[in-house]
Amino acid sequence: MRSEFEFIHNIKKRFSLEAIGDDCAVLPMNDEHDLVVTSDLLVQDVDFRLLWATPEQIGHKTLAVSLSDIAAMGGTPIWAMLSIAIPDDLWKTDFLDRFYTGWQDLAHKYGVKLVGGDISRTPRDFVVDCTVAGSVPKGKALLRNGAKPGDAIYVSGTLGGAAAGLELLETDASNHNEVTSKQLEPQPQLALAKLLINNNVASSCADISDGLLADLKHICDASSCGAEIAAQDLPILPLIVETFGSDRATDFALNGGEDFELLFTVPEEKIFMLEYQPVTRIGTITANVDNIRLIRDGKTSIVTPKGYQHF
Amino acid sequence: MRSEFEFIHNIKKRFSLEAIGDDCAVLPMNDEHDLVVTSDLLVQDVDFRLLWATPEQIGHKTLAVSLSDIAAMGGTPIWAMLSIAIPDDLWKTDFLDRFYTGWQDLAHKYGVKLVGGDISRTPRDFVVDCTVAGSVPKGKALLRNGAKPGDAIYVSGTLGGAAAGLELLETDASNHNEVTSKQLEPQPQLALAKLLINNNVASSCADISDGLLADLKHICDASSCGAEIAAQDLPILPLIVETFGSDRATDFALNGGEDFELLFTVPEEKIFMLEYQPVTRIGTITANVDNIRLIRDGKTSIVTPKGYQHF
Repeated sequence: MRSEFEFIHNIKKRFSLEAIGDDCAVLPMNDEHDLVVTSDLLVQDVDFRLLWATPEQIGHKTLAVSLSDIAAMGGTPIWAMLSIAIPDDLWKTDFLDRFYTGWQDLAHKYGVKLVGGDISRTPRDFVVDCTVAGSVPKGKALLRNGAKPGDAIYVSGTLGGAAAGLELLETDASNHNEVTSKQLEPQPQLALAKLLINNNVASSCADISDGLLADLKHICDASSCGAEIAAQDLPILPLIVETFGSDRATDFALNGGEDFELLFTVPEEKIFMLEYQPVTRIGTITANVDNIRLIRDGKTSIVTPKGYQHF
Repeated sequence: MRSEFEFIHNIKKRFSLEAIGDDCAVLPMNDEHDLVVTSDLLVQDVDFRLLWATPEQIGHKTLAVSLSDIAAMGGTPIWAMLSIAIPDDLWKTDFLDRFYTGWQDLAHKYGVKLVGGDISRTPRDFVVDCTVAGSVPKGKALLRNGAKPGDAIYVSGTLGGAAAGLELLETDASNHNEVTSKQLEPQPQLALAKLLINNNVASSCADISDGLLADLKHICDASSCGAEIAAQDLPILPLIVETFGSDRATDFALNGGEDFELLFTVPEEKIFMLEYQPVTRIGTITANVDNIRLIRDGKTSIVTPKGYQHF
């Protein structure tokens, strides 16, 4: 049985979308800026459940996942297109008003202008596709292919919350705490992205959508290098460790997807620029191509990313 | 019971998408060009049926409807994002390969580059959202708001084929002829669009997606004018008249949607530039705001657009 992850991976390959790579497409715009563009499709009962997510939260998340891709490129979001397929039963409620409120609240926060889109009836499932475009200084987009051996590996915020939160919500839809909010209302790291691109701090960058190990592998593959990270350095919310124990918490942090934090590499001489930022060093880039080593409980192993599996 | 047309119209109003207006959003790109962007969402059993459309035709149509929006602005398409939600049963077949073949064949024809997108599993219905961006000479995009009293009203190609074709296909899924091909494989009018914009021929332009009268109303509303058209001048495929009779054929031409022909207005002194083009003059713009007059069987009536209703 093919997993969701393989499913998406295979089809991206078939569509040559892997070759396009990175979190956004980078397109020429004018003499000063490139355009970065991303699309994210969210499907009811695949990416969220109406049982445990409010319409506002679904609206928020729809935009947040695309803004996270813009952040991963060091971009500043400008405009968005929003396409919605909605079944009759939802249309008859206040769902769409509330969805739109959540979407627009986040859009206003980051100055994103809704410029168009489409809307259609759908026989059954609510589906939404959001395309967001932003700008980056010409030739400066943060790509996945610039990591060099010796670069420090950093992540923003905390890890594993989205996956742990999903498990909590599937057990108890009313469970709202700092862990479930990582699943329900992910925050795009646009402020940090600005710092990373303006000061040429990051040599490579991706957002953590598939899972830390999977996205680290994307950077290592694109940069033809390896990595070594230490489990004890992973920033994990204490509540996750309390709830699930240390081992499972570490697994969530390593393989849980949808944290929408930034994963980036920094040359040693640039590290001082990250002082006081909400980021954590978790390891170092190595010259061992195709080799991601994890130090855990005093033992070093070569790991294979499991990637994120939809429920 | 709300119709599909009202449904979409209302929600566009609620989302302020009406204010955005026109077939594409027009966004600043550089000193020479503006960017025009459009998104179109197609849903299984709403916009097409697997019963009568091949996967290649669905792929073709997915891109064609967006290219038609680009044409309506006088644009040259550049890149596209393609987001797909696909159920397991279709994924296990060659559907997506064939869908993609149809999409890419049309993309290659017009030099459109696929730069990204998303793919997700969906519990049931196949849904696809296509965002296409193009360029227009700065400040020259063909808008709906430039029609002036006295301007000639033109349409490209023939009308009513998509709606008549839909009816034929719903009766007999294997009915393939020049009428059903208007439903199954609409052709974006990019070559004509080029002529209209390069020579400043059109004072306003829209593509016929909702239906001739509905889209003519869009132009009249945006331009604060009225229109008078003659039923006898509508270009209708003879096969439609033979199959459905003259009255129904005229109704298809007036109110059938999805023809994806161009509807545009031309100042009298520019009409000579259309010589030998596959276009037909169907009437004249008037100064009577909110007033669309139809001359049919020797009688003049004020018409209310019915718009396109999905099956």
